[in-house]
Order: sequence, then structure tokens, then C-alpha cells
Amino acid sequence: MIVQPAPGTVTLVGGGPGDPDLITVAGLKALQAADVILYDRLGPVSLLDDVTAELIPVGKIPHGDYVPQERINQLLVEHAQRGRRVVRLKGGDSFVFGRGGEEWQACAAAGIPCQAIPGVSSSTSAPALAGIPLTHRHLVQGFTIVSGHVGPADERSKVDWSALARTRTTLVVLMGIAHIDEIAAALMDGGLAADTAVAVVADASMESQHVVATSLGQVTAAVREAGIKPPAVVVIGECAGLDLAHTDAASRIPSDH
Amino acid sequence: MIVQPAPGTVTLVGGGPGDPDLITVAGLKALQAADVILYDRLGPVSLLDDVTAELIPVGKIPHGDYVPQERINQLLVEHAQRGRRVVRLKGGDSFVFGRGGEEWQACAAAGIPCQAIPGVSSSTSAPALAGIPLTHRHLVQGFTIVSGHVGPADERSKVDWSALARTRTTLVVLMGIAHIDEIAAALMDGGLAADTAVAVVADASMESQHVVATSLGQVTAAVREAGIKPPAVVVIGECAGLDLAHTDAASRIPSDH
Repeated sequence: MIVQPAPGTVTLVGGGPGDPDLITVAGLKALQAADVILYDRLGPVSLLDDVTAELIPVGKIPHGDYVPQERINQLLVEHAQRGRRVVRLKGGDSFVFGRGGEEWQACAAAGIPCQAIPGVSSSTSAPALAGIPLTHRHLVQGFTIVSGHVGPADERSKVDWSALARTRTTLVVLMGIAHIDEIAAALMDGGLAADTAVAVVADASMESQHVVATSLGQVTAAVREAGIKPPAVVVIGECAGLDLAHTDAASRIPSDH
Repeated sequence: MIVQPAPGTVTLVGGGPGDPDLITVAGLKALQAADVILYDRLGPVSLLDDVTAELIPVGKIPHGDYVPQERINQLLVEHAQRGRRVVRLKGGDSFVFGRGGEEWQACAAAGIPCQAIPGVSSSTSAPALAGIPLTHRHLVQGFTIVSGHVGPADERSKVDWSALARTRTTLVVLMGIAHIDEIAAALMDGGLAADTAVAVVADASMESQHVVATSLGQVTAAVREAGIKPPAVVVIGECAGLDLAHTDAASRIPSDH
């Protein structure tokens, strides 16, 4: 099903959470086959040291310079129209808050064939790396991934946080650190108890990965106290409190290389 | 952060949706380093042709023979206690309905170090491969992954389907084909309109991948008419109706190998 980048096409590659070995084999092959790669600040950028493609940085720096999405779309189309094998590399998965849909739409509008090579999203991998399952048989049968980029009270918010609180799924909030106080309050207003388990996973898959275990009522203070900075993933619900491992579980495993 | 399998440890590897190139590089390295691999019927089993490890099938065949989860847990622990590098390979991601949590718990209880190497879950990759984004800026800011293995009316169901219908997130139902009529009814009872867009993605990442585009009110008939069989992923909401591509978008891209 997955085909390698062909001349005049765009391939959207999800690069995984950051560790260069968490890209897929297909994603790595696509980077190696590319003529040009447009890449973000996040994701496995160290892989780009070993490719022959032209490299174009289009990353968005928070509160700093950035390449507007419309310009990125235009670059993808222009390079493909010149007959090049174009790869768009992002952290995580292109279609999980990755604007991959917008890029695919722009290609489709210009008649450029596009495909996505799925990546490991931080929404599921950050909890997994910390030993937190998102589902657990007989206990939790689903999970919700939601952006906290705009807070619950913001008119741009499209999410019904009160309904979310009642789904009985594990809640995973991405980009939610800046609005964690409002988010916790909205979920408690919606019916979640203040002692609902919460785990905050920061810098997933990197050497600096760390986890703060807390509760919904305490999460704002805990995040502040621990000095958590983005990127961080907030896991809310019974699964967040499962006693599988602590922060450093993986690092406790002796390495043989 | 990811370390290779060490003697006396268990590594849970998510193998991705089926295409052997959709495993992560770290997952592939773990298979190559393993002394013994316990594997399922689903996932990239063709990769096992090229490894030197002892192979133990523990897959669950629907309505057929299977190895009970407790026995799988026991095998993982026993092989690790014998000082072997144990890898547990599954389709998708170990922690997304994969019972990885139970296996990690069993290891932890026996004092066996365990780590998870995240995989590409079919919950996010099936839609991506079909050109369906799960989120779209200004439109949908989250998505919910839920198991349809037990129907909404089943007393074993832990999900509030009525609340789900009101979250305004994209809904992704795994293992839901057998109960699709009850699921659609519960979501419409919860307030979703009968004309809500639905896309059903079957056999994601395989040659046989195909997509049925329909609506919530018509999904039961559409699934029956198309002869959809598991594994299939049901995507519900505005994003399911986005006009990015049709079923064969990826195959329309000329292959250069």
C-alpha cells in the first residue's frame, strides 16, 4: 500500500515523537528517496543529517518567526510541479493536529498526487513510553485525544469539555499546559472528581522525558511546581493511575549496547 | 530513551497496521535482537521470516482456538526469568486495546523489567492512509478512539455513547462492525444527525484496503452491502466527509520501484 515518493508527488511523513528510531521504516525510506524535504522544528530532525535531499526548514517557533501554513502548502505544490519527489516531515503523525489535511487539500486542488505515511503520534506514544496504557480491559474502553491549544472558554474552542468529562474514556490533552487550570476546571464542572488520576508526560522519548503523577484537582499546582514546559501530554482518568511503572522504568532496563 | 531488548527483560513492540514497513525502526531492531518473540495473528508477521529468534504464536483467532491472556503473561515472565531477550509483537500499538497494560503488570509483579516500543495504531493510521484527517484546524479539535467490541447496551460496556455524541470530536470506532447498528443508533439517540459523515476503512495498509463513504443513518446498510469484514475502522464526524482523496489515492501515485 505504501509506495515510495515518486517524481511530482508529495508524501506526508509522520516522524514520531522525537527519538530517531521511532520513525517508521517506510518513513525513513521516504526521507532517503526524497529530492526535497520540508521539515519542522519538532520530530526526528537528526535523521536529516544523513539524507541527500535539499532541506527546507518551515518550522513554527512559538511566539517567534514562522512560515505561514499557506506558504508551506505553496512550497509543496511548487516543488512537486517541478517534478521533484517532495517529502513533508513532521513530528508525530501528520493527521493528528499536524495540518496534514490542509496540505493534502492544497495538493489535491493543484492536481498533485499526495499520500500519507502514518507516524507514531505523541498522543499515544508519550503515555506508552511512560508505562501508562490508554485502555485497560474491563476498565476503560476508549480514549479521547484533544487539543488544549485554545482553552475551554475561548470562542475558538470547538470541543464540548463537559461532554468529554462524561464519556468514561481516558482523556489525553495535547498542547494543554498553558491552559491546564481552565481545562481541569471545565472537566470538574462536567462531573469528573477532583481526585481523578492525572499523569503529565513531558519530553516523551527524549533523554529528558519525565512524568508527574497527580490528580485533576492538583494538576495546575503540580505542573507549576515541576516546571513542566511544552511539549507535554496530559493523561486524565483511571488509566493514568495504573501502577505499571514509574518515570524511569525504561531507563532501569540494563542496556546491552 | 528506547533501549534494545536486554537479557531477562520484556519489550512490548507495536508492529503497526500490517504493512511490514509501518513498524518503527526501533521495533524492527528489537525483533532482530530478540531471543524469543511471542506474536499475534495480526500485524507485520512477514517480518518474522527474517529473524533468528524462537517464534511462539499466541494469536487469538476469532471464535477459534486461542492462548488465554493469563498464559501469555506467564510465558513472557518465564522466558525472561530464563535470562532471554523477550519481545512481544502485536499489530498496531500495544497500549491501544492491545492488552499491553496487562502484560506490563504481569512483568512488574514478577520483577521483570518491561518497556514499550510504541507502534502506529490502526486507529489513527487507517484514516490517514485513506486520506481522512482526524482533526482539522478551525473545524475539529480532537478525536475519540473507542472499542465497539461490546455494544452500547451490553452491561460490559464502560462507554457513555450519549456523551460521546456530544463531544464534537471525530469518533473512531475499532472492532465495531458486528455492533454497528446499535452503535449508530446510540449516537443518533445522543444527538448526532443521521446525515453525519461516516467513512469505513477496511484492511488498512494492505493491498485489499478499501473505504466506504456513507452517513450515520446509512452505515449499517452500507457496511452490509459492501460486505465489510473486520478488521475495519469506522470514522464518524465532519472530518470523515472531507474531500481529500478517494480510496485509491495512494495507489494512483506512480510507483518507481
